[in-house]
Amino acid sequence: MARVVVSVMPKPEILDPQGKAVHGALPRLGFHRIIDVRQGKRFELEVDGVVDAAMPTEIQDLAGRLLSNPVIENFVVEADGVPVDPGEPGETQDAP
Amino acid sequence: MARVVVSVMPKPEILDPQGKAVHGALPRLGFHRIIDVRQGKRFELEVDGVVDAAMPTEIQDLAGRLLSNPVIENFVVEADGVPVDPGEPGETQDAP
Repeated sequence: MARVVVSVMPKPEILDPQGKAVHGALPRLGFHRIIDVRQGKRFELEVDGVVDAAMPTEIQDLAGRLLSNPVIENFVVEADGVPVDPGEPGETQDAP
Repeated sequence: MARVVVSVMPKPEILDPQGKAVHGALPRLGFHRIIDVRQGKRFELEVDGVVDAAMPTEIQDLAGRLLSNPVIENFVVEADGVPVDPGEPGETQDAP
């Protein structure tokens, strides 16, 4: 059984109101050295069996279709802590 | 400038309805090898200056007080991809 982590973050050019709200609360709580906060989502998937050759493509597909909104979000897939290569250049998470 | 990542996940014994909803949608989309999904939050903090000796404690404090609910969530802090030691045993993220 393998654990695959998909991290989904708002694209840099997209406004992130949740992150801004957290950032705005920091000085009141005594934290002054943090200059920006972005908030995203983290998915932990338990995969039956090993992460074989077909799995990266399948997880990339899943991350792009179900777990993220490619218009406003980027995602990164990691299998057991190692980033998974999308297999093809120009995938969703590299799009401008 | 350093980037610190705080990953917040529901504790294993806590029901995760968002993760369950994602998991329930997978077979309809043709994914049959994923046996569990948990959904949490990911915060990316930009820290002014370097991550010095005081920073891990400060970020742990911030993660426990503002970014997570210690009753139902665990968190992990990573600075530049390396997990940050909480400094003391028995911190929030290790609590049962």
